[in-house]
Amino acid sequence: MTTKHLVQFVNAGSVLVPTGTPVITAARLAGVEISQPCGGQGRCGRCLVRALDGRLQQRLTPRLLPSDIVAGYALACHSSIVEPVTILVPPQQEIAQRLVTERVAPEISVLEHYDASQCQPVRLFNLTLSPPSIDDQTDDWGRLQMGLSQVLDRDLFQVSLPVLRKLGNVLRQSAWRVTALVETDTWDRPSGPARVVDVYPGHVAPDKMLLGAAIDIGTTTVTLWLVDLRCGRVVSQAADYNGQIARGEDVISRIIYASKGDGARELRALVLNTIHGLLRTACQAISAQPADIVKATITGNTTMMHLLLEIPPASIRLEPFIPAVNHPSTLRAAELGLDIHPDATVDCLPGVASYVGADITAGVLAANLNRQDTVTLFMDIGTNGELVLGNREWLVSCACSAGPAFEGAGVVCGMRATQGAIEEVWIDGDSYEPTYRTIGGGAPRGLCGSGLIALLAELFVAGVIDKSGNIRLELPTERVRVGPHGPEYVVAWASETQHGCDIVLTHVDVDNLLRAKAAIYAGFTVLAESVGVPLDAVQQVFIGGAFGKYINLEKAIQIGLLPDLPLQSFRFLGNTSVQGACLALLDRAARQSIKEIASSIVYLELSANNAFYDAFTSALFLPHTDLSRFPTVQAAMAERTNHVHHW
Amino acid sequence: MTTKHLVQFVNAGSVLVPTGTPVITAARLAGVEISQPCGGQGRCGRCLVRALDGRLQQRLTPRLLPSDIVAGYALACHSSIVEPVTILVPPQQEIAQRLVTERVAPEISVLEHYDASQCQPVRLFNLTLSPPSIDDQTDDWGRLQMGLSQVLDRDLFQVSLPVLRKLGNVLRQSAWRVTALVETDTWDRPSGPARVVDVYPGHVAPDKMLLGAAIDIGTTTVTLWLVDLRCGRVVSQAADYNGQIARGEDVISRIIYASKGDGARELRALVLNTIHGLLRTACQAISAQPADIVKATITGNTTMMHLLLEIPPASIRLEPFIPAVNHPSTLRAAELGLDIHPDATVDCLPGVASYVGADITAGVLAANLNRQDTVTLFMDIGTNGELVLGNREWLVSCACSAGPAFEGAGVVCGMRATQGAIEEVWIDGDSYEPTYRTIGGGAPRGLCGSGLIALLAELFVAGVIDKSGNIRLELPTERVRVGPHGPEYVVAWASETQHGCDIVLTHVDVDNLLRAKAAIYAGFTVLAESVGVPLDAVQQVFIGGAFGKYINLEKAIQIGLLPDLPLQSFRFLGNTSVQGACLALLDRAARQSIKEIASSIVYLELSANNAFYDAFTSALFLPHTDLSRFPTVQAAMAERTNHVHHW
Repeated sequence: MTTKHLVQFVNAGSVLVPTGTPVITAARLAGVEISQPCGGQGRCGRCLVRALDGRLQQRLTPRLLPSDIVAGYALACHSSIVEPVTILVPPQQEIAQRLVTERVAPEISVLEHYDASQCQPVRLFNLTLSPPSIDDQTDDWGRLQMGLSQVLDRDLFQVSLPVLRKLGNVLRQSAWRVTALVETDTWDRPSGPARVVDVYPGHVAPDKMLLGAAIDIGTTTVTLWLVDLRCGRVVSQAADYNGQIARGEDVISRIIYASKGDGARELRALVLNTIHGLLRTACQAISAQPADIVKATITGNTTMMHLLLEIPPASIRLEPFIPAVNHPSTLRAAELGLDIHPDATVDCLPGVASYVGADITAGVLAANLNRQDTVTLFMDIGTNGELVLGNREWLVSCACSAGPAFEGAGVVCGMRATQGAIEEVWIDGDSYEPTYRTIGGGAPRGLCGSGLIALLAELFVAGVIDKSGNIRLELPTERVRVGPHGPEYVVAWASETQHGCDIVLTHVDVDNLLRAKAAIYAGFTVLAESVGVPLDAVQQVFIGGAFGKYINLEKAIQIGLLPDLPLQSFRFLGNTSVQGACLALLDRAARQSIKEIASSIVYLELSANNAFYDAFTSALFLPHTDLSRFPTVQAAMAERTNHVHHW
Repeated sequence: MTTKHLVQFVNAGSVLVPTGTPVITAARLAGVEISQPCGGQGRCGRCLVRALDGRLQQRLTPRLLPSDIVAGYALACHSSIVEPVTILVPPQQEIAQRLVTERVAPEISVLEHYDASQCQPVRLFNLTLSPPSIDDQTDDWGRLQMGLSQVLDRDLFQVSLPVLRKLGNVLRQSAWRVTALVETDTWDRPSGPARVVDVYPGHVAPDKMLLGAAIDIGTTTVTLWLVDLRCGRVVSQAADYNGQIARGEDVISRIIYASKGDGARELRALVLNTIHGLLRTACQAISAQPADIVKATITGNTTMMHLLLEIPPASIRLEPFIPAVNHPSTLRAAELGLDIHPDATVDCLPGVASYVGADITAGVLAANLNRQDTVTLFMDIGTNGELVLGNREWLVSCACSAGPAFEGAGVVCGMRATQGAIEEVWIDGDSYEPTYRTIGGGAPRGLCGSGLIALLAELFVAGVIDKSGNIRLELPTERVRVGPHGPEYVVAWASETQHGCDIVLTHVDVDNLLRAKAAIYAGFTVLAESVGVPLDAVQQVFIGGAFGKYINLEKAIQIGLLPDLPLQSFRFLGNTSVQGACLALLDRAARQSIKEIASSIVYLELSANNAFYDAFTSALFLPHTDLSRFPTVQAAMAERTNHVHHW
């Protein structure tokens, strides 16, 4: 005899159901409507519920974070009743918001063990100095240094003109009780003098926040984290499109723009403008001022760093593809034109090569790739696709020229991952009818990267396109047709969309996406071959980049973008670039580490690499010419063939 | 029987005279007119002659430099015939020019042993780099560093944004043959990374000049020396009045001006303007550009340094007289607004206290005071009077608030040492009539410092003023009278002067001069007492400052400004401040040395010192209350009393 449990839905009915009843079934019995865009496959996350009282039994799903599960969240399609429980069905709006919020607030597990006493690069010291007299004629700056050397184990100090200019007044107005802001450590002065960055009248409270900024300049998105340097906590965040987008969507077009007339200066102004907007936003949220920020680290791909510093990037795109600089010297904010404390140190993180930049070394640092025992693949798929393969003993990298297809560029109805972008798609294997989810939940405007991957995978698995990417026009559905760009599949009819036009995926789009995924898979293949590691020796895949975080894993494997490994082998790390910048901002050891990473990564330039072209050609199929590399996809296709009469 | 020698005067007659005949007598016998303004005392230098062929026997005179004597120069009144000789009597104009030129071109004996290979702080390296390729992907900056580390024993390098911005183009345009300008050593990065200051296409000739600037900012005069850093040679010089003079003649009035409204910014702009004018002038003379100057050291008194850096100087004049900074950190030229190479390092030399500044530590360095075995007095009498007493074991210093009387300020007919200033005076003990010499040789406009000293001494020795400084109006000469300012002595009648007014010295002027000389002598007394050294243990006096160089020693002793020591105990060192700046510019050891000097000098603040006031009061007489301190003056006075009937 099966035990029955009382299930109470908040603000709705209740029902008594036996152990093992799916939550979705219990809801239906209780008269509660829960939407299921993906048909109960646990993939869309839209049937999110929350157990307020009691526990639900869950199957593993990549849609939920461990912290969500601890908080009682579950997917109604992937959980069941095992005890009496009260269930909240959040309104759709709240679910959408949760998912949107997640996009800008990744977890920062990497900072768990931050020890400020060991690491803190900039510190405040409350000093009470003895006043000068006829018998004690030490100058103001000398007096401040004497005070500091009593609380800090240093005897060499540096100071800037602006501080010297205010010092005398600050000391006298505050009756020789002052606070000194001191930078004890920068990486190009390993044993150099400490630097007095500022001096304030009176003593500050010991819990006064001390702000640092970690900035990731992506080709598309600029991300800012404000960190309290005393404890390593991220206290505010902001992200926005890189203002340079209007002058070119990818690095190559920006390099070309920078080479003409006043282009370089304009691009620098545009990205600084974006950063300044983020600084204001992030500071406002915590009632601070950008001038309160006393240290910054900046990361980004090599082109973005050149453009920020207005260093001519022309050689980056011309064979042999050499950047002017992989690791600029430490700068002052005023020198760079960055509107934080003018005397704050700005560290630009070190990159490896023209197409494996500081964003990737920061990612390797944040992912701890250089500390792994097993061979691990680190991928950062943004506007470009960069890969690093390695472990604690070696690291090898390449850039895949994947192009921005996965960011929606070069695709007729492609768009970036904003409001109205279709981010997930399911296709019924019988009717070929799609169900989709948009960012923000409203009517669709186009397809973003994760939507494109999902669509491609679903079209392939449903048999709408074949393994070469050809659209099967003979299928009995209006969704396939020949449009102005050739064969296409209609994802959304004009009547459903924001702009009143059909949203389609054309054969040309499919070709572009195949080339992009083939480039990434070929990069992975060549990296492994270059170090003589068999592909199946790679046991872990770390995926960085805001984009990576929203990939549907199974579908990315189905199209052959990711290797066919068990789902638990994949870890989505979020924006590893800004995480790495944050670590380097806080921690001397991390700064040392990222320098070692940058100098130890072996870079493979693929543009003249024949093995890469061979691997690329083999990967231009769904999922791959060599189907044995994708056993689970092979199995799924076999299953589908057995079940679907018109396959 | 006495041997006779043939004396041939160039372009004039010849004469046969016995051994021991004074040159002046031989000239008169040969019908050659030689002017003797001082009456043959060897003091004015105007009877300069030159032995072209053969040798003259000379008595020692402070008017001639050793190099002059070697070159055959002699004073006709102080030399005699000992062998056949050809004598040139230079035209008066040439003599005047020689004396004027000397004013801006002191000797630099201190640089004799410069070893560029050991010291040179900034160096040019010709590099031929291997071009990058697909297989050698090192970035441009990394490649430059690799090239440098092969010729320079360093592996850490820094670089500025402007260099990074030009690097790629320079490397490619010159086919990877470039010259790097590298600063290997600055004093606040003793073990820090070398800094690439600039990079140029192609290779430079090994004899290319590498310019450094040593700048002395005096309250009155700014002096610039351009030095070739490769060999330590001074290649160009310029000096001009400090443009701040119009905003106050002494440091106190400038401090007050700086404290009001935009005064500080204005004063900074004025002195920078003066410096920039000097840079242009000095560069033009050697067909160089100010931007070619790749390193600078700046010295000056503490107020001048504050004003240059626009650091508020207010506390310098308020008890307890504390400067904001004695030793500012190393700056870049662009930061300071100095129009040389924008990335050049600018070192401001370290001072000791508000009134013993970097000009004095530089002077101590140049004078080698800190290496002397015997106790030595170093004096720098400019707008203020600073003294340092010491030897290799200790150094003690004070500032005497002498005021600018010896620069002509606070004296009715006083003026600075320019064209038309009376710089030397002789007074006939019988007629009380004066003879004088002006700078440039033309009609007089006023009295400069050395003229005032000479006048005071002559008036005293001739008995026109008594030991208290009172003018003896009862004397039978129209030169003494009561003018609008009280009793006065007329040095030049209106008919002789440039401006058509009498040039006089009033009783008030005499009082001011007495106070100035008394302050300096009292400072010396107190310094000696403070370390328990008897006055007569001081065996050497080094006199720095452009002013010091033109003092007539005997006369300065006669008025009690200098201690009564044998003439050979005095050494005129010229502008020791700029000499010290030059040493610190060139030589790492000198930079270390001047830091040690600044930190080891013990400073005595005299403003609250009772012993100083006692010593000052005793010194308010000519030459001093205690005449036994001035035995030669005592003897001269006795002699005069015996010979002059109306004494």
